Amino acid sequence: MKIIAYQGEPGAYSEAASKLIFKEDIELSPSATFEIVFNKVKKGKADFGVVPVENSLYGSVFETYDLLKKYSLKIIGELNLQINHYLMSNKKYKLKDLKKIYSHPQALGQCSQFLNALKDVSILPVYDTAGAAKMIAENPVANEAAIASKRAAEVYGLKVIQGNIQNNSENYTRFLVISKKATGVSSSNTKTSICFELKSMPGALFRALSVFALRDIDLTKIESRPIAKKTFEYVFYIDMKGNLADKRIKNAINHLKEISHSLMIFGSYEEGKTFSG
Amino acid sequence: MKIIAYQGEPGAYSEAASKLIFKEDIELSPSATFEIVFNKVKKGKADFGVVPVENSLYGSVFETYDLLKKYSLKIIGELNLQINHYLMSNKKYKLKDLKKIYSHPQALGQCSQFLNALKDVSILPVYDTAGAAKMIAENPVANEAAIASKRAAEVYGLKVIQGNIQNNSENYTRFLVISKKATGVSSSNTKTSICFELKSMPGALFRALSVFALRDIDLTKIESRPIAKKTFEYVFYIDMKGNLADKRIKNAINHLKEISHSLMIFGSYEEGKTFSG
Repeated sequence: MKIIAYQGEPGAYSEAASKLIFKEDIELSPSATFEIVFNKVKKGKADFGVVPVENSLYGSVFETYDLLKKYSLKIIGELNLQINHYLMSNKKYKLKDLKKIYSHPQALGQCSQFLNALKDVSILPVYDTAGAAKMIAENPVANEAAIASKRAAEVYGLKVIQGNIQNNSENYTRFLVISKKATGVSSSNTKTSICFELKSMPGALFRALSVFALRDIDLTKIESRPIAKKTFEYVFYIDMKGNLADKRIKNAINHLKEISHSLMIFGSYEEGKTFSG
Repeated sequence: MKIIAYQGEPGAYSEAASKLIFKEDIELSPSATFEIVFNKVKKGKADFGVVPVENSLYGSVFETYDLLKKYSLKIIGELNLQINHYLMSNKKYKLKDLKKIYSHPQALGQCSQFLNALKDVSILPVYDTAGAAKMIAENPVANEAAIASKRAAEVYGLKVIQGNIQNNSENYTRFLVISKKATGVSSSNTKTSICFELKSMPGALFRALSVFALRDIDLTKIESRPIAKKTFEYVFYIDMKGNLADKRIKNAINHLKEISHSLMIFGSYEEGKTFSG
């Protein structure tokens, strides 16, 4: 039996991702914040954590990037989940009667066109989508609704007012599986993730990218995060195609170390498959 | 008399930035959302807008990046404001008695260490810092407080419970001045901002950065944002040192157009000075 930590309440998209990745024999461990997920994995209270890292409409989940570095955990897998948002409440209210709608800020952003078309509704950000649904179920107030997954409506016995309310049906969230230990990966479709802080020099980022381009290594993502003590300097996060067992990847990372203050390897893992949520 | 639009209520950090940039003869136009600021400038209801683009602890303000592209406005200036957060309420409550603290998610993030040390307090995100202070002043509830600027405490007649509660005293927010029309800039310390969508090819971002590196143009910031209809593809935003009047910059941008689907120039402007907020 493996324990899987995720952020949110039962019915959260992270829970759905956890179930798709670890098909059986798991115990799910809902957690109030991303940091608690990382903490549980670091301290061995969970075997793995499942955390969102980016959404195809809304962009990166900054906190996940920052916590990967802070907790120095390994990435051992990923998964893309198609996100379909549902508006739900204790009764099947008419849209024009709604007064308050609760959800996670990313979900609210993904449904902005639907929400902007409503009149006289307060849009209220809360910590997670399933938590919004749970709140509506436990403390029903007339004309208040939540945006969450279809499964959250089932879990909390809520009525769906309208489904698929996101701006764009091409709405995917990429989740990472984090672990204390790296696992070997043998698939031919692998990715490797690192982060690094560059030495200050002209064209520093260009030089960093050259270590990959000169070895024909494809990058799939680049992200930057601020460094707290160095105002407007950045840590860069890169995902590349390939495996640490590959000499080209090893050489590129060693080359990058020559021009970096610090470099952290999160590991190699199989490229994420896509599922409908 | 120039009209300056900013997001937030009177007492917002964006209001302080607006006053520092436009010293006199201005009418300030508080706006509920970033999009309303862009809209006012686009439609001529405001001459300029002042919007935060990144914080040295918390990172980029995604919405500003997305709106720059959506509204196709020009950047004509910038300013760095040192941010000092204050905890305030209608009474000088003891920390241990506080039950709810309201502020903008970025301000809550910047004060996370202070907030994590408090027990049994609900942390509630709202649209802006000064708005949280205004809410506390207008509807005082026992043991509820807001995090906002010192000026917000003055504007709304609130008592400061504790000052300088941010994680790091090196807490700066960079603001942009947006306008419908570009202005010429003659200073020697200039920056130029662009965004572009690259054609799909191996090492595409490396090639994009090479157009600057090969011409000795320094980049000060790179940011990426997702493209809605192209899952996990990105628009890149770059700030570089130099001026569009400089042939090197012009050539680099023309070179970049060769390998881009689309490219937008936000303009050249004087590098931001730093002020204490």
